Amino acid sequence: MTEALTPEAPVISDAAGTAGQAPENPAAGRVPLTPEELEAAVHAIADRSRKAARRLGQANRAWKDRALRAIGTALLANRKHVLEANAKDVAVGRANGTSAALLDRLTLTPERIDGLVAALENLAGLPDPVGNVVRGQTLPNGLRLRQVNVPMGVVAAIYEARPNVTVDIAGLALKSGNAVILRGGSAAANTNEALVRILRDALDSVGLPADAVQTVDQYGREGANVLMRARGRVDVLIPRGGRELIQTVVTNSSVPVIETGEGNVHIFIDESADEEMAVEILLNAKTQRPSVCNTVETLLVHSGSKVLPAVAAALRKAGVTLHVDDRIAAALGNGVETVPADDHDWATEYMDLDLAVAMVDSLDDAVKHIRKWTTGHTEAILTNNLANAERFIAEIDSAAVIVNASTRFTDGGELGLGAEVGISTQKLHARGPMGLTELTTTKWIVQGEGQVRG
Amino acid sequence: MTEALTPEAPVISDAAGTAGQAPENPAAGRVPLTPEELEAAVHAIADRSRKAARRLGQANRAWKDRALRAIGTALLANRKHVLEANAKDVAVGRANGTSAALLDRLTLTPERIDGLVAALENLAGLPDPVGNVVRGQTLPNGLRLRQVNVPMGVVAAIYEARPNVTVDIAGLALKSGNAVILRGGSAAANTNEALVRILRDALDSVGLPADAVQTVDQYGREGANVLMRARGRVDVLIPRGGRELIQTVVTNSSVPVIETGEGNVHIFIDESADEEMAVEILLNAKTQRPSVCNTVETLLVHSGSKVLPAVAAALRKAGVTLHVDDRIAAALGNGVETVPADDHDWATEYMDLDLAVAMVDSLDDAVKHIRKWTTGHTEAILTNNLANAERFIAEIDSAAVIVNASTRFTDGGELGLGAEVGISTQKLHARGPMGLTELTTTKWIVQGEGQVRG
Repeated sequence: MTEALTPEAPVISDAAGTAGQAPENPAAGRVPLTPEELEAAVHAIADRSRKAARRLGQANRAWKDRALRAIGTALLANRKHVLEANAKDVAVGRANGTSAALLDRLTLTPERIDGLVAALENLAGLPDPVGNVVRGQTLPNGLRLRQVNVPMGVVAAIYEARPNVTVDIAGLALKSGNAVILRGGSAAANTNEALVRILRDALDSVGLPADAVQTVDQYGREGANVLMRARGRVDVLIPRGGRELIQTVVTNSSVPVIETGEGNVHIFIDESADEEMAVEILLNAKTQRPSVCNTVETLLVHSGSKVLPAVAAALRKAGVTLHVDDRIAAALGNGVETVPADDHDWATEYMDLDLAVAMVDSLDDAVKHIRKWTTGHTEAILTNNLANAERFIAEIDSAAVIVNASTRFTDGGELGLGAEVGISTQKLHARGPMGLTELTTTKWIVQGEGQVRG
Repeated sequence: MTEALTPEAPVISDAAGTAGQAPENPAAGRVPLTPEELEAAVHAIADRSRKAARRLGQANRAWKDRALRAIGTALLANRKHVLEANAKDVAVGRANGTSAALLDRLTLTPERIDGLVAALENLAGLPDPVGNVVRGQTLPNGLRLRQVNVPMGVVAAIYEARPNVTVDIAGLALKSGNAVILRGGSAAANTNEALVRILRDALDSVGLPADAVQTVDQYGREGANVLMRARGRVDVLIPRGGRELIQTVVTNSSVPVIETGEGNVHIFIDESADEEMAVEILLNAKTQRPSVCNTVETLLVHSGSKVLPAVAAALRKAGVTLHVDDRIAAALGNGVETVPADDHDWATEYMDLDLAVAMVDSLDDAVKHIRKWTTGHTEAILTNNLANAERFIAEIDSAAVIVNASTRFTDGGELGLGAEVGISTQKLHARGPMGLTELTTTKWIVQGEGQVRG
């Protein structure tokens, strides 16, 4: 599941000179390039990426898995070097007054590196999405038809100061036969430089093209902008990070984008919901990991339900600040501490131990509230009423609609996808948790023996 | 299959005042709106479209099919009125010096209206893509998981002077549960106004929301621009027309776009290709319907093949102009009339009785030529060599790759999709012929009895 940053200006800075590969122009990062030179340099990277993608696209699963394991081995062998590079970035971040949350995302530890290696090993154990036959038939005229998954080709990722994404997205791209171009931001420049070098060396060590992993970090913000406009050269762009980063990419990109992550998630407690279930699910959905996108942010309670006091008390006891409307405040009375909510609260993805709570008089009102404020990620209903469950499923237009379970299940791993590229909140191509297959496209293969069209 | 126009400036004009519905602002089309008023007016249309989409998304197949048949009945009942409106547009086009090809696309005839009605009847006979279960399982913790197809919601179409698209795309959107916003261009203004009114009345007559079909033609070019930037309000934008129209939409849109249509299609005649098969396939692929996107535009001939004279003679006899490189000219000698080809020819989608022909010395050289010039639509190999067939399939990255059959088969109808929205030449969401399913997205439905995440 994608961890979103707290909203903050996108970390697309002008810092340069941290390439994981030799720049085309040796002056890059020292002497400012003209816009034309910069565009040519980024296009050259994309063109090398295309070449690498063609070789990678022909590699069988065993070969790709060998590369994933070689990366894991190299990460462990170079752990000290990576941690030293990371310490430099963290020190710079601290000196610049970076927030504790951001510093936490920026920081690698020996255990986090172990986690990256374990994820690579997990990836190596997954089936190859490439070559999967989506559908096929023999047509009346004898033509044999197959639609098969093939790699996208060149995948670009733009993300903020999270060096784990460098390894994560490179591994996912590699397994699905894609070359990847990374833009990881200046805050993690030293770490990413070290990681990209390890990735490239590991690819090379198993005979796959090192250019399957490249970065444009050395070309700063302008490099990222060229990448976003490189339609035709880049097949898909995946931004990972906070709202502003994603909006910047969506607005400026002519390359097709898969939007991920923002989750203003709702739970509606219907009149018939069971109290114990409601308490357990709310505690899980709000407090198990509040900083992630599938955590609940607004609770809607049916005015006929009796479970509010127990749910509110349990959440308070768990340290959750309740931002409530007037009716909830009145219903709870003085026994439970609350703060007043306004429209800002209905719109906010707190990603913290905060929950907006509103009272509604019907399923219709709950649906209306959700339609107004949702980001289309995940919504849940807690109910014992079959008709209401069916209506909620039919009328809520979100990537995941859940009945009587925690919203924390909207996650590629939990839903059995094996690995997760992110959670798409758009409708095109992929919606909800994205697995490896969502990093592929399809190709129609038609085989005949001379058929022509009548 | 999509018929592409000959390249020409996109017909997104400033003409106004041809709404199929009452404009929000009665002054629209007469007094120029401020940019803010115009944006508000187009957004209001999109918001009505969203409401209509929610109702339509809940309609079952029988209801939607009733609407499709009601549209057909109304088209037949109003045929005279539609033809009169169309005659006005054709007269204006003729007076403005519109090309014969464009006038042909613009013109409706009684037979073409019959064709539209037959297509609607065909659509009514197809299964409903909505509600189809893509995959599902019961997870180890007992959660029941289903991924189902659901409508996109609001689909917008921007197209050129082809009034048939108005009925065609509205029918496809309706069947897949989507509301549609049309931008059909000023050249077909009278025809589209008449058609949109018929579509809306027919929807209303069966109790479905008329606002499921709306147009922004009354707001001219600026209205189209607002539509392209209405990300969040419009779920997907489908441009249909020539290269410049599609490029304009791709470049200016922040709404996700499905790019359709451009086909610089190649056939490679390998050394081992059968002569008779090569002649028949080339004749079919070039001359059966030269103006469409799956017609062949470049022929590559292996230097070791002996079939060139027979193929060239047959094509010449069928009236095809052969634009050839020096080696082909030398091989054909004086017996066959040719014209010299240059890079312009390799890049051109003639859509006419013209064919570029080059000689290559190997499969590698053929692949190299195709990679350089293809639009990624369809490529075919004619061969009797299994290894070469496999390599061509693996190495050519186009929406459709064909072995020993005509390129004209890249078509939703021919490939068994039932109906065709267009042929996508992009990799995201849909690639190749798009059927009704490609106008849907998916929703994950998770049902439990109190499960929380461990």
